[in-house]
Amino acid sequence: MSLIECVPNVSEGRRPGVIEALVAAVRQTAGVHLLDVSSDRAHNRSVITVAGDAAALKAAVLALFEAAMATIDLRTHTGEHPRLGAVDVVPFIPLEDVTMEACVALARETAAEVAARFQVPVYLYEEAATSPARKNLEDIRRGEFEGLAAKMAAAEWAPDYGPRVPHPRAGASVIGARMPLIAYNINLATDRLDVAKKIAAAVRHSSGGFRHVKAMGVALEDRRIVQVSINLTNYERTPMFRVFEAVRREAARYGVAVLESEIVGLVPAAALTATAEYFLQLASFTPDQVLEQRLRKVTR
Amino acid sequence: MSLIECVPNVSEGRRPGVIEALVAAVRQTAGVHLLDVSSDRAHNRSVITVAGDAAALKAAVLALFEAAMATIDLRTHTGEHPRLGAVDVVPFIPLEDVTMEACVALARETAAEVAARFQVPVYLYEEAATSPARKNLEDIRRGEFEGLAAKMAAAEWAPDYGPRVPHPRAGASVIGARMPLIAYNINLATDRLDVAKKIAAAVRHSSGGFRHVKAMGVALEDRRIVQVSINLTNYERTPMFRVFEAVRREAARYGVAVLESEIVGLVPAAALTATAEYFLQLASFTPDQVLEQRLRKVTR
Repeated sequence: MSLIECVPNVSEGRRPGVIEALVAAVRQTAGVHLLDVSSDRAHNRSVITVAGDAAALKAAVLALFEAAMATIDLRTHTGEHPRLGAVDVVPFIPLEDVTMEACVALARETAAEVAARFQVPVYLYEEAATSPARKNLEDIRRGEFEGLAAKMAAAEWAPDYGPRVPHPRAGASVIGARMPLIAYNINLATDRLDVAKKIAAAVRHSSGGFRHVKAMGVALEDRRIVQVSINLTNYERTPMFRVFEAVRREAARYGVAVLESEIVGLVPAAALTATAEYFLQLASFTPDQVLEQRLRKVTR
Repeated sequence: MSLIECVPNVSEGRRPGVIEALVAAVRQTAGVHLLDVSSDRAHNRSVITVAGDAAALKAAVLALFEAAMATIDLRTHTGEHPRLGAVDVVPFIPLEDVTMEACVALARETAAEVAARFQVPVYLYEEAATSPARKNLEDIRRGEFEGLAAKMAAAEWAPDYGPRVPHPRAGASVIGARMPLIAYNINLATDRLDVAKKIAAAVRHSSGGFRHVKAMGVALEDRRIVQVSINLTNYERTPMFRVFEAVRREAARYGVAVLESEIVGLVPAAALTATAEYFLQLASFTPDQVLEQRLRKVTR
């Protein structure tokens, strides 16, 4: 059976009753498995992680829109995290026995139905993007809800689906398909923020680093250390171990050691397996040698 | 559902028809999943890997004995690998939702029934052993089939179940419970066999090394390199990464580099995850963060 992950980001992270209603809409859809919910008060945003097949996920996203349209009003929404709409972003991610192309198709179908049913304009992003200028979420979201009406007036920001004006309360949504994202932080044994910032600049794509790395240097003030905070957007092409080793070497150049690293949320097993392969210098290893993988293959 | 692995080693690795009959006996048992079969002509031995619950595995082992009794005669068996009997060794290994104690109980029940039904003497080993002297397979098997009658005459080598004399054709069997074993080889960028032997001696338990490591140095003559060939008998207490790093450092002491390492057969995912945790210096990581693990938890 094909298995797809879906990680809707909704613009509500403060009212527990509303968050519960949004999660319930998703969870109550038949065939959908709830993996995680994480809400952030400062961001005023919740991230819901679910898995299922294409039909179940499409139904779940439509149910989520229905619940969000009834409870979220962007005109009064505040929070630190940039956002365009009530259901702000919906990525579909291939997990098992499914291609990226199938996830792109699912994103398009879902976007079309969201636009038709709720009169919400939808932009397609990442692998589902209809032009290179719309690949990056940050570019689509620049200006946020408050600047959306002006942005949409420009020809190049006509939505892929739905009306050419924002929905009054729900703004616009960004729906697409992408690889699993790994949120990965590397903490340094120093309080020198400039070092973390220089290392982040060295490894991230936007300033000359690895193709699938986004990174910034931040201070963890309560611990008096600094962190290179990283998003790995394609762990197959830019693997964890390579980024870790690069950060470690850059830090050494400033006389700083890596204190520890941390994975925030979920990580695909393949990313960890590849890391073990690298450091153990494993030759001719295949995922088929992982006991649990073999078991899943013969028991399902 | 509880899941146990069972890895019977049978004394036949040359006659394809016989091997196929032995494998068929196991595979045809309801509830048993065949994971792997590997036969070695030089060893004249086959290793069958299956998984299932306790009842299914017990039935499969009895079916395997029945097939082996009909086709294998130790009196004419030759091969490089030490062996005591037709079905030489049968370990039960806890995989999921099952304790080691349950595997020990399964080993005892199976041993009692094998002895009663086939008049084959059975020794319990590893976690199922009835005395420290019987924990190690090598100790039980010393003297092999050819020396078995003399060995069994001594009071301390009375079997745990069955007659006090070897079965004329099938010898004796060793049945027990143990942790998953990882067959792990580290190849060195040198042809100096003495270096591989010194490193093996440094890391193995029997000569002062790690508690759960068996190791020997061997030459891979066709490749003109040497290998530290390792069995990791408890990867939780003596993890792969620690053994790899120890071998690497010992090799460096002789000016030799690690060329590569290799896992032979299957490896539990946890052993690879722990390796990634170690090298990435992961803090506060839990197996629950592995996407596939979370998925299995919510979908079953």
